[in-house]
Amino acid sequence: MAAFCCLQMHSQSAKQNLTQYVDPFIGTGFHGHVFMGANVPFGAVQLGPVNISQGWDWCSGYHYSDPTIIGFSHTHLSGTGIGELGDVLFMSAVGKINLKKGTAKDMENGYISSFDHKDEVAKPGYYSVILKKNGIKAEMTASERVGFQKYTFPASDQSHIILDLVEGIGWDRAANTYIRVKNDTLIEGYRFSKGWAVDQRIYFTAILSKPAKKIQLYNNTKEMINKVVMGDSAKAVIQFSTSKDEVIKIKVGISAVSAENALMNIKKEIPGWNFEKVAATADEKWNKELNKIAVKTNDNAKMKTFYTAFYHTMIAPSIYNDSNGDYYGTDKQVHRSAGFTNLTTFSLWDTYRGANPLFTITQEERVSDIVNSMLAIYKESGHLPVWHLMGNETYCMPGNSAIQIVVDAYLKGIKGIDGELAFEAVKATAMQDDRGLNYVKTLGYIPADKLKESVAIGMEYAIADGAIAMMAKKMGKTEDYNYFFKRSKAYQKYYDASTTFVRGKVSDTEWRTPFDPFKSAHMKDDFTEGNAWQYTWLVPHDVEGLIAMLGGEKKFTNKLDNLFTAKGDMGAEASNDITGLIGQYAHGNEPSHHITYMYNFVGQPWKTAEKVRYIIDNLYSDKPDGLCGNEDVGQMSAWYVWSAMGMYSVNPFNGVYVFGSPSMDESVLNLANGKSFSVKAVNNSPKNIYIQKATLNGKDYTKSYILHSDIMKGGELIFTMGATPSKSWGTSIKDRPYSIEVKK
Amino acid sequence: MAAFCCLQMHSQSAKQNLTQYVDPFIGTGFHGHVFMGANVPFGAVQLGPVNISQGWDWCSGYHYSDPTIIGFSHTHLSGTGIGELGDVLFMSAVGKINLKKGTAKDMENGYISSFDHKDEVAKPGYYSVILKKNGIKAEMTASERVGFQKYTFPASDQSHIILDLVEGIGWDRAANTYIRVKNDTLIEGYRFSKGWAVDQRIYFTAILSKPAKKIQLYNNTKEMINKVVMGDSAKAVIQFSTSKDEVIKIKVGISAVSAENALMNIKKEIPGWNFEKVAATADEKWNKELNKIAVKTNDNAKMKTFYTAFYHTMIAPSIYNDSNGDYYGTDKQVHRSAGFTNLTTFSLWDTYRGANPLFTITQEERVSDIVNSMLAIYKESGHLPVWHLMGNETYCMPGNSAIQIVVDAYLKGIKGIDGELAFEAVKATAMQDDRGLNYVKTLGYIPADKLKESVAIGMEYAIADGAIAMMAKKMGKTEDYNYFFKRSKAYQKYYDASTTFVRGKVSDTEWRTPFDPFKSAHMKDDFTEGNAWQYTWLVPHDVEGLIAMLGGEKKFTNKLDNLFTAKGDMGAEASNDITGLIGQYAHGNEPSHHITYMYNFVGQPWKTAEKVRYIIDNLYSDKPDGLCGNEDVGQMSAWYVWSAMGMYSVNPFNGVYVFGSPSMDESVLNLANGKSFSVKAVNNSPKNIYIQKATLNGKDYTKSYILHSDIMKGGELIFTMGATPSKSWGTSIKDRPYSIEVKK
Repeated sequence: MAAFCCLQMHSQSAKQNLTQYVDPFIGTGFHGHVFMGANVPFGAVQLGPVNISQGWDWCSGYHYSDPTIIGFSHTHLSGTGIGELGDVLFMSAVGKINLKKGTAKDMENGYISSFDHKDEVAKPGYYSVILKKNGIKAEMTASERVGFQKYTFPASDQSHIILDLVEGIGWDRAANTYIRVKNDTLIEGYRFSKGWAVDQRIYFTAILSKPAKKIQLYNNTKEMINKVVMGDSAKAVIQFSTSKDEVIKIKVGISAVSAENALMNIKKEIPGWNFEKVAATADEKWNKELNKIAVKTNDNAKMKTFYTAFYHTMIAPSIYNDSNGDYYGTDKQVHRSAGFTNLTTFSLWDTYRGANPLFTITQEERVSDIVNSMLAIYKESGHLPVWHLMGNETYCMPGNSAIQIVVDAYLKGIKGIDGELAFEAVKATAMQDDRGLNYVKTLGYIPADKLKESVAIGMEYAIADGAIAMMAKKMGKTEDYNYFFKRSKAYQKYYDASTTFVRGKVSDTEWRTPFDPFKSAHMKDDFTEGNAWQYTWLVPHDVEGLIAMLGGEKKFTNKLDNLFTAKGDMGAEASNDITGLIGQYAHGNEPSHHITYMYNFVGQPWKTAEKVRYIIDNLYSDKPDGLCGNEDVGQMSAWYVWSAMGMYSVNPFNGVYVFGSPSMDESVLNLANGKSFSVKAVNNSPKNIYIQKATLNGKDYTKSYILHSDIMKGGELIFTMGATPSKSWGTSIKDRPYSIEVKK
Repeated sequence: MAAFCCLQMHSQSAKQNLTQYVDPFIGTGFHGHVFMGANVPFGAVQLGPVNISQGWDWCSGYHYSDPTIIGFSHTHLSGTGIGELGDVLFMSAVGKINLKKGTAKDMENGYISSFDHKDEVAKPGYYSVILKKNGIKAEMTASERVGFQKYTFPASDQSHIILDLVEGIGWDRAANTYIRVKNDTLIEGYRFSKGWAVDQRIYFTAILSKPAKKIQLYNNTKEMINKVVMGDSAKAVIQFSTSKDEVIKIKVGISAVSAENALMNIKKEIPGWNFEKVAATADEKWNKELNKIAVKTNDNAKMKTFYTAFYHTMIAPSIYNDSNGDYYGTDKQVHRSAGFTNLTTFSLWDTYRGANPLFTITQEERVSDIVNSMLAIYKESGHLPVWHLMGNETYCMPGNSAIQIVVDAYLKGIKGIDGELAFEAVKATAMQDDRGLNYVKTLGYIPADKLKESVAIGMEYAIADGAIAMMAKKMGKTEDYNYFFKRSKAYQKYYDASTTFVRGKVSDTEWRTPFDPFKSAHMKDDFTEGNAWQYTWLVPHDVEGLIAMLGGEKKFTNKLDNLFTAKGDMGAEASNDITGLIGQYAHGNEPSHHITYMYNFVGQPWKTAEKVRYIIDNLYSDKPDGLCGNEDVGQMSAWYVWSAMGMYSVNPFNGVYVFGSPSMDESVLNLANGKSFSVKAVNNSPKNIYIQKATLNGKDYTKSYILHSDIMKGGELIFTMGATPSKSWGTSIKDRPYSIEVKK
């Protein structure tokens, strides 16, 4: 009977309709910058609306405050702090052809339209809106590499669809554009652009459901005689006569390789014309992914917040190859990815903290795709990606965060990764001369007068070095272990005991002055989107070492307490990214994400519970402004997914998940190995936020963390919650979580 | 017996050793600008030395006056007026590594070396030189897509070979460069450059015959840690220890698609390491092509001049696809050419006159390759090429000269060409709005105040329009015929009867002033590299119309006589390209090339004979300065080949070859159809330059031209030469050559 019971307990729960809880509007307001539109999990295509506005809050092309649509483009970023992509934009219109997009104030002199949020429908894999200007209903769905548009026109002999290759989002500028009309239902072309990605190439093929009456090509406003336009401003106007409510559909395949491959992608993924079926398939794909975590709560808003967060972790990394495996490498050559799906949009400084560790549970196969994509980049470019976008290295953000991700995957035994190659890659990446590594190798720290953001960069390198040390140890590479273990302690070099903060170091005996732990001068000082208050805690790989550095448990705890109440002026030059402040803790930006969980390392898990629960309840919501800062390509949401289940990946590569305070009554992880692991919070309520006791698979569990390996075995973790802190649970030294060198 | 005799007469002559007559130094002096180095006929690789100097006379990278070598690059133009290519440069050295090329005055601070012409060997498919600096013997040979280098080193533990991707010729500038060391004998990379070709992409793979001791990569002078360099100045230093006279060989495959394809090209074309065998194969390939015309003369210098000229007509158009057919199209996509070899380096304004018509006799299969390559460009870009280089349209030179070439091939019945597509392409090209065609379509001429070089452009369009008219007529497209026939007469619009010259037209009633028929202002006036004296004759497609326009035969003849004696000041702004002057006739530039042959149209073939023979004897020689102007990618040499045989393609698309004065005692055309056509000049001598009588296949032949179709049937044309003009031969109206509308 016991065995039977156990089997039941660990078997996967039946598939629920979870896409119903996803509200893509969450995070489209404030500075969330999330993508709005139709896509499938990790799809290459993100087909959605673009507003007329340009500015920091339009990084994804869409912001809740903006009632205009210039068209629907096939690629979008989700939650970055830099605007890019927005490639291959279509817009439908009726009446006189207008090649200019127009302005928000003068829409009549352009093809843009206003819209009302009440006329929008947004759900996983589907988006629709009614364009107020002419009453056209625009609907979008997608497969992995194909965008599918459906327009319902009024009766008119002047109905038309504009294809505008000039338009792009944010920094993106069209460089070379091309359209060729192959026949009255088939158009191909490309859009090469410069921006954050300095040399982005996207080819497309578009198939029309109805032969066009005429397809007129332009370069800017210059009318072409022939069926080809090649220039910097290629546009096409696809003309139809339509009866009332006549539907015209367009399938657009994209590729970084060729229009021929783009056409192949359409044939492979969406051979037919059943829009509703494609939308239903997209919904199914999302639902399958969302069912990997089945949570229970009576709070419907929390269901929405959770599943939208989970949804948002699966926009990127996005597919970056064709259905035959072809992709355009960072070495500007076409490769065929063998045995893995090549991916891009690697916002690694953000995602290595929580999103990538989450993938090791929910996306095991995609973790090997991620790592193999990174190793391909290593082979092609000599180093792992920093912030990679469509074959381009942007070198955005400090550190070499790919190292943590590769090591985490290796140490967790993810299949399909060549360990020797992976070690060669992480080591070669850490042994470069660029971006301050020459100073790390020679001085052991990066001098503040030699490189801006030196402390942030140096501390990120120390984390990566800790990861390499652990990998070297596992592989028996003692010399490498000793070398990188020493480098992993480099955070100590930046610590000024007299101020009790990390700060810019000019020489072995000199600090950069003046110094103010509150001040932040974006892109000018020694930190990256932060100040000394926030960066002093950036030692997720060696919390024990950090505690010692700060003077022991008591001083550490006092300082940590103070972090959440400290008040000071960050100054006028502080980064926009420092948001979601609680004292000087900045939940809106990544370097803070592990800090609340550090109380467990000093045996005070109730303080972690309080902070985490406060953030869950106050800094996330199911409203458009429900994210307190940039989504950062899934990381803000990944923190929520982890924390709502009751844990977080403080050290992003040691497989130790530190407990916080589960806000869900139950969270069932349905694992790829067929097992399931459930986390139950008995007596959970808005007041009962403190863990009183725990059992793992029926046995008392006193540790304030759980191992990745235990989760992967399947099982049941039951927390009993209470309204007051437990004096005993998780307090003893033996039950605390550990970092790099402390083994239990 | 007669049949037997005839059979013998028309059978192909046995293959001779003709490469012995080729002297690649001819044309490397003065302004000839020819390529020096190793290649095979129409090969993608032109592997040869590059001098340190930059300037107009270094368009090919090499000029006879320059005693320095910076290295050996894999691509070169032959005889242009703009410097380009020079991609993927290797240089060998001994001693301390020096990454800079150095200067002519201070060679020690660089890797360049001086050399002596006595230490050079240059012949078809092979080049060698001794680098004076260190005594290294450098030898080069090539296959179609692979360059093969062989270096004989002294004893040294500091021998090395530099790969420098920065270097390029003339306008060429490296934009993106990349080198990856795959192992100690295998390197790959690319060089993308901007220049005349605004976006040229060349990938390469290099295989070493001996494992390198070390391969160090650099970006500019910055040393790389890893095995990859990506930047704007990638270089590699391949290091060896060598014993005395140790040979190190390198095979370098090139591709416009990928390094992988470049490697495939090596495996396909040069799998082994036998340098001498590859050089012998290259010699064989050249010899095979040269044997297509077997000439006889006792003058050895003339043998050298002729076969070097013939050799120079076969440098380009060059292969522009991989051994599997892949090429990078002008639509910036990879295509696989089906059923034809894709070609590039289309210097069409030059070559349409004589080189391309010659190919219809000697390179029948390549003519369909040329046309199909052009039609691919049409499909990809909407128009036929103007001056196409490595997938880039340079829009260099007036007119749409590809039209004449396509039409000529079609009318001559060259196999493998889609006639309907070809007509669509020529018509679409002529019906564009760009480059003055809008004025041609609306006004019938290009106003001089609207577009520079309006007369040159307009007259070139008229030639193309004449070609389209002939094709339309043949295809029964009456409406098109009428339209383009009318446009073919547009040269008349530019004719000012009051000055008896063509000149810039501002309106129907106004000419551009001031006007001086001698003046030339390069890129500023109404002509292209010429003046009114030269351009008034640019009506090769309608000589009868030109005669009428100039006031009849007498006035035409007087004016033509005057052309060769007229003296006047062209002014300080005249183009460098106007060279080889006889009066105002400029043999050094293409618009003049047909003019000497125009006397046959007025029944005075002896004047043609005098002029042609003068040019053959005085403006060509077997010395480095043996070309009187830019080789222009084969056209200067093609004129010589034609004229030495005794004829020329005045109208480049009507298959009528006008006689001049054969300087060869015999010229046998060995045709692809297995037949041969021989031209004999009985009693030929430096004094006996006048044709007295002729027989074709034993019958009296009184016409002063021959038809392409008669040549292709095989046969024998025998001229009897004499020291005084014949009063009767070629003088009657019925025996004169004809142009577009006059049929006999």
